[in-house]
Amino acid sequence: MTYTRTLACLRCAASYADPSLELVGRGCPACEADGVPANVLPVYDLAGLSAVPVSGGEPGLFRYRALLPLAAGTPAVSLAEGATPVVDLPAVAERLGVASVVVKDETRNPTWSYKDRLASVAVTKAVELGIDTVVVASTGNHGAAIAAYAARAGLRCVVLTVASVPSTMKTLMQAYGASVVALPEPRQRWSLMRELVEKFGWLAMSGHADPPVGSNPYGVDGYKTIAYELADQLDAPPDVVVVPAAYADGLVGVARGFADLVELGVLERSPRMVAAEPFGPHAAALASGSEVAGPVPYQPSVAFSTASPVGTFQGLSALRSTGGAAVAVPSDEVILAAQRELAASAGLYQEAASATAWPALAALDLDPSASVVVIGTSTGLKDVGATAATLPEVPVIEPAVDALLAAIGS
Amino acid sequence: MTYTRTLACLRCAASYADPSLELVGRGCPACEADGVPANVLPVYDLAGLSAVPVSGGEPGLFRYRALLPLAAGTPAVSLAEGATPVVDLPAVAERLGVASVVVKDETRNPTWSYKDRLASVAVTKAVELGIDTVVVASTGNHGAAIAAYAARAGLRCVVLTVASVPSTMKTLMQAYGASVVALPEPRQRWSLMRELVEKFGWLAMSGHADPPVGSNPYGVDGYKTIAYELADQLDAPPDVVVVPAAYADGLVGVARGFADLVELGVLERSPRMVAAEPFGPHAAALASGSEVAGPVPYQPSVAFSTASPVGTFQGLSALRSTGGAAVAVPSDEVILAAQRELAASAGLYQEAASATAWPALAALDLDPSASVVVIGTSTGLKDVGATAATLPEVPVIEPAVDALLAAIGS
Ligand SMILES: [Zn+2]
Ligand SMILES: [Zn+2]
Repeated sequence: MTYTRTLACLRCAASYADPSLELVGRGCPACEADGVPANVLPVYDLAGLSAVPVSGGEPGLFRYRALLPLAAGTPAVSLAEGATPVVDLPAVAERLGVASVVVKDETRNPTWSYKDRLASVAVTKAVELGIDTVVVASTGNHGAAIAAYAARAGLRCVVLTVASVPSTMKTLMQAYGASVVALPEPRQRWSLMRELVEKFGWLAMSGHADPPVGSNPYGVDGYKTIAYELADQLDAPPDVVVVPAAYADGLVGVARGFADLVELGVLERSPRMVAAEPFGPHAAALASGSEVAGPVPYQPSVAFSTASPVGTFQGLSALRSTGGAAVAVPSDEVILAAQRELAASAGLYQEAASATAWPALAALDLDPSASVVVIGTSTGLKDVGATAATLPEVPVIEPAVDALLAAIGS
Repeated sequence: MTYTRTLACLRCAASYADPSLELVGRGCPACEADGVPANVLPVYDLAGLSAVPVSGGEPGLFRYRALLPLAAGTPAVSLAEGATPVVDLPAVAERLGVASVVVKDETRNPTWSYKDRLASVAVTKAVELGIDTVVVASTGNHGAAIAAYAARAGLRCVVLTVASVPSTMKTLMQAYGASVVALPEPRQRWSLMRELVEKFGWLAMSGHADPPVGSNPYGVDGYKTIAYELADQLDAPPDVVVVPAAYADGLVGVARGFADLVELGVLERSPRMVAAEPFGPHAAALASGSEVAGPVPYQPSVAFSTASPVGTFQGLSALRSTGGAAVAVPSDEVILAAQRELAASAGLYQEAASATAWPALAALDLDPSASVVVIGTSTGLKDVGATAATLPEVPVIEPAVDALLAAIGS
C-alpha cells in the first residue's frame, strides 16, 4: 500500500491525519484563516515503484487502487467506471496545426460524465468510514454521479441544487433516488452543507468553503486515473491537456496523475494543463499573480457545469506547476457552435461546458509538434434544450421524393 | 478472411452475392412473394477456427472484423464503440431466485445505445461500397447512431422519422448533422425509403419491407460482438439473455454471435434468447406457431424505441432456435417503475424500452442455477421527460437545517 493515510495542504504543506472529516470540502484551517482557503489532498509514498501498480480483479478504476486514498480492505463501490476510449481527430489537428488531437471520451462512464471517477472513490471512502448519508452541492453532473454511486452503495444521498439547473439534471439525480432540494441562492448551499456535515456527520461530496477549495479530496484523486489510462492509450506522451473547469477538481486530479507518472519515471515531464472556463477566474488570477481565483463578472451561461465566477487555489496550483494556461470562453454562441461542429464533423456530442475546450484551444499558441488531449467531460444529452434552440424545427413532409429533396435542400 | 461475401435468406436459405444492394432492408424476394418477408444475412466460413479471431490494432468492435461482413481493406468507421462493461446485480439475482444477473451496459457506447454496433458496421459497409448518402427510418437511437457514424465518415445522412418522437431524439440526430424529416404516418417512411434507395442508390440503414424484415444485414452482424464480449467477460456462460426488441435486430445479432461461439467450440450451447416487447408480436406468433409476428393491438408507449405492433421473421427464428421466449410488457406504469427501481437500487438509469427487460424476466420460469444477462440498450437520458412525469417537483427551500429535513422527510 502506498497511501500514507495523510492529507496535506496544497498551499502551506501542513499535514493532517486521514480521517479528518472536518477538512473534507473545507480545506486547510490555517490557510482559511489566512484568507486563501486551500484544499488538502492525499499523500502517497511511491518509493520503490517504477510503474503504476495494477490490481487485477478489481472493478473499474479500482484497478488503480494502490494509488487511490483507500484502506486495503474497503470494498469498491463501482459501476465499471473509467477505461474510457480516446477518439482521434486528425482533421482538427490539421486545422490547429498540431501533431495530434484526441478526445478522451468521458461520456462513456456510468452516468455519462467524468464525475463518476470522483464519485466512485468518494462514495467508497464514505463506506470505508461507515458514513450513512452523503451530501453534495451540484448543478448536475457531480450530483448525478454521487446519487448513482450512493444508490449502488445503499447510502442516502442529499443533493443541494439551484432552481436554474436544467430539468434533465434534476430528473437524473432524482431517478437515482437522491433527495434533491433547491436553494434560492447558490452560495447558501455551502453554509447549509457545512451545518449538515457538522451536525449529523454526513460526508461532503463537494466543497463548502467560501471562496471554494474544491471537492472531496478522496474524490479528486479519482481523476488521477485519467492520466494513468492516457499513458497507456497514447502513442506519444501528451504535451497539452485541456480540461473544462470551474473549481478545477478534474484538472487537478489529472495533473496529479501525471505528476505520479513523472515521479514513477513513466513519463519524462507533465503535460501543460489548460483550463477552459466560461468567465475566466483562473485566467484572471494567472494574469495578476493572485492566489485567489475570482470572483470575476459573470452571467447565465449555456456551459452550466462550469459557469462559475470563482476558481480555486488547487486549480491555480496545477496550472502554475505545469506551465499551463486558462482561457475564458464566455459566449454562448461560440460554445454552441463548437458543440455542433464536433458532433457534425466527428460524431461526438459533448455537453456545452466540454465544448469550451475547442475555442480555448484555438486561442493558444501551440507548437506544431504538440500532442493534444481534450477531456470530453459529459454528454450533450444532459442539456439537449440548449442545442435544440440553435437548430431548425424538424419539418413534417408529404411522403414523396420531391418533398423530401426540397426539405433537405438537395 | 472468413466472410464468404454471400447473404443467405434466413427462411428459404436462398443465397445472394454481396453486394446485392436491392436486398438491403428488403430481404429475400422469394419469401416476400410468399407473403413472409425474411431478412438475408451474411454467411461466414468458420472452418479451421477454434476461437474468435482478434485483430489487434483495429479500433472498437473492429477487433472482431474477421467475423464481420467486410472486405479486407475497408477502413473502419469507428468511434471506439463496444467493449462495454457488465455490471453485477446480486440483489436482483437473489430476488429472482437465480444464480446471477448482470446488465451489459450498452449505454457506454459513443451515442449511448447499442445501435452504435449496428451503425459502425453498416456505415463502414457504405464506405466500402462507395455510397455517398445513407438513409434510415428511426424513432431515435438507431437514427442517432447512424447520424454520428455518417458524420465520422463524411457521408450524408437522411433520417425519416415521425412527429411523435421525443424532442431529445430529434435534436440528437440533427446535432450530428443529419437531415431529419418527419412523415405523417410511420409506414409511409418505408415506401419513401425504398423509392430513395432505388432512385438514387442511397444505402438503407434500416428496413423498408412491409411487414418488416429487420435492418441492414451488415449492421445486424455488428451485434454479434456483444456475444463475443460476453464470452470473455462472464465467469460462466449465460443461460438466458434478455433483449428489448421491436424488429429484433439486436436480439438476432446477439444470437448469431452465440451461434458462432458454439460452432467454434468456445461454448457448448447457445443461451435462451428472450425478447421483451411492449405489445408482444413475437410472443403472439410463438404462441400461435405463425411465421409472421403481428400486427397485434398497440397504443402509444413510453418504451418508444420498441413500441411496434409487428415483429420479424428473423426475431422468431432466433427465439425458436434457442428455445427462447417473448414477453409483452404493455404498461407504462410497470415500465417506468422498473426503470426507477434499477436506477435507485443499482445506479443504472436505462431507457424505458430497456426497462421492459425486468418485468419480462420476472414473468419467466427460471432455473435456480441460471446465469442471466440483460442487455441495457440505451440511456434514460434519451427521454428524460417520461421519468420526470413520475417524480415530484424539486422543492425550493429556505437555507436552514429544519427546512431541509422537512423537505427530505427526515
Ligand atoms: Zn494550508
Ligand atoms: Zn427466402
